[in-house]
Amino acid sequence: MNKQLLLNKRPEGLPDEDTWKYVTSPIPELKDGEVLIQHHYISLDPAMRGWMMDRKSYIPPVEIGEVMRAGAIGKVLKSNNHPTFKVDDCIVSWGGVQEYEITSGENCYKVDDSLVPMPKYLGSLGMPGMTAYFGILEVGKVKEGDIVLVSGAAGAVGSLVGQIAKLKGCIVIGIAGGKKKCDYIINELGFDAAIDYKSEDLYEAINEKCPKGIDVYFDNVGGDILNAALSKLRLNARVVICGAISQYNNKKDVIGPSNYLSLLVNRATMQGMVVLDYTNDYHTAAQEMGMWMMQGKLKSHEDIYEGIENFYETFLRLFSGDKMGKLILKVI
Amino acid sequence: MNKQLLLNKRPEGLPDEDTWKYVTSPIPELKDGEVLIQHHYISLDPAMRGWMMDRKSYIPPVEIGEVMRAGAIGKVLKSNNHPTFKVDDCIVSWGGVQEYEITSGENCYKVDDSLVPMPKYLGSLGMPGMTAYFGILEVGKVKEGDIVLVSGAAGAVGSLVGQIAKLKGCIVIGIAGGKKKCDYIINELGFDAAIDYKSEDLYEAINEKCPKGIDVYFDNVGGDILNAALSKLRLNARVVICGAISQYNNKKDVIGPSNYLSLLVNRATMQGMVVLDYTNDYHTAAQEMGMWMMQGKLKSHEDIYEGIENFYETFLRLFSGDKMGKLILKVI
Repeated sequence: MNKQLLLNKRPEGLPDEDTWKYVTSPIPELKDGEVLIQHHYISLDPAMRGWMMDRKSYIPPVEIGEVMRAGAIGKVLKSNNHPTFKVDDCIVSWGGVQEYEITSGENCYKVDDSLVPMPKYLGSLGMPGMTAYFGILEVGKVKEGDIVLVSGAAGAVGSLVGQIAKLKGCIVIGIAGGKKKCDYIINELGFDAAIDYKSEDLYEAINEKCPKGIDVYFDNVGGDILNAALSKLRLNARVVICGAISQYNNKKDVIGPSNYLSLLVNRATMQGMVVLDYTNDYHTAAQEMGMWMMQGKLKSHEDIYEGIENFYETFLRLFSGDKMGKLILKVI
Repeated sequence: MNKQLLLNKRPEGLPDEDTWKYVTSPIPELKDGEVLIQHHYISLDPAMRGWMMDRKSYIPPVEIGEVMRAGAIGKVLKSNNHPTFKVDDCIVSWGGVQEYEITSGENCYKVDDSLVPMPKYLGSLGMPGMTAYFGILEVGKVKEGDIVLVSGAAGAVGSLVGQIAKLKGCIVIGIAGGKKKCDYIINELGFDAAIDYKSEDLYEAINEKCPKGIDVYFDNVGGDILNAALSKLRLNARVVICGAISQYNNKKDVIGPSNYLSLLVNRATMQGMVVLDYTNDYHTAAQEMGMWMMQGKLKSHEDIYEGIENFYETFLRLFSGDKMGKLILKVI
């Protein structure tokens, strides 16, 4: 039997528990070329909130009654003549919030969990890692000496963005919520400075910690923080729009950045990114990221909660900020 | 004697008449290497509103008591050993709102008014022309087949942006206020379609006239129109932030574009521009623009009002929209 989480309705604002429902259904027989994967870990990401909305986006929405989309990692239990995946192979997939999946292997790839623990393949070597890598290097175009400000700096993406920028010789300031996260990004991750948006005035803090201004702002949060960052751009600055977690549960309009004319004054660029565009280059990026990790130059923390039945409480941590690094649900 | 318009105070909101004051002062003697220029025409531009604000921008503000900054064109009346400018030469300068100026020639250049009438050197061959040229080609990066939407489409910059995009093989839709302007950009300038923001619902009209979406949006106005345009971007669209005339007289915050996450979904870029960055390439651009004009492929209209004493009433036309094309004050 397979326990699955289905989308039950489209949420307005912060999703309530009734947004999803659990069902348990028998596992069908494998067709020729298919494998049965048992999920070990499921990835929880802010992007999931967007996938629940019925609107044009970079990916079709999850339909009502469908298994909730999520990245997952697990092991092949059974193969029916699959050309490459064998029993006990460790597979990263878009398997969704369920205990098992059956797949022909589309959009799946095999990884070596003897080398790196499974959760890292959902974090620093998974979608958040790729987002950070291509976001800060390809879209942010960081170069040595750049002053880089990143929001959601203790999060799955932001924590990597800052470290990659440091590896490239930048001065890196992170914005995070609370002393614990701010201490973590400075002391553990090597950021040059931190701003606690929960206790500091954003404009004052940015002025103080980025007195020369900002060359690259990497935005995961939107809202007031984006606006404050825009007020301090340097000439030819780049603003990477990766996410806007502060706005995802708005019932009204998203708050637009009223300081956007700073783009004009500073001849700056604000560019949106979706990591799926870089799929063809994941392999190269993962190699470089993996090397940095093995050399101890790139750290990541996975915040792991147990039990598929605890999806809802765990999901809410994405928005409350009550987590550290990459949020993961352990299924087995 | 020289009649001059001085900045008298910093305006809040729409400037009142008291924002400036006229003075008449004797013309000093020329120092060695200087020329005396009599202004014939003065350029009125939306950017002037920004120059009056005491804040960091791409150019220092006009100080209280200074002659109001403006582009101007006129003739050399007297030269005291100026190395290149001779009596009767026609000179484009930043001479400001006054009848005469004395200059050593910095930031001035000579033009041939026997070839092209003086007002064109403040319009299609001046700052608005250069803004349109570099904005749509260098920042907008238009290519054949692109769907281009431009706001302020009957204005000095927008009217040229649309025509240049047409010359490059684009489909061009203009947004303007009122039937007269909309008819003008279609019938006289060859735009493919027009949207009258004063009588049409913006979202409906953009949907109808850009059913496939927008590759390049060239924004002169900001506010609701920018927001509506963002809602209809295509993949990898470019948004050129050239101005935001709807916001310049705001007493409160600028309205930020709440649809900015369309940049993320569509991997689009929003980039600010300031024409002064392209000064070194003006010559090449003016040559190409001049050629198009002589071939009848690039049209422009100058809306000329008379009398330096009518500066205020004329200036207000920038914001009421009660003008067509490039707004100019005739001084002599």
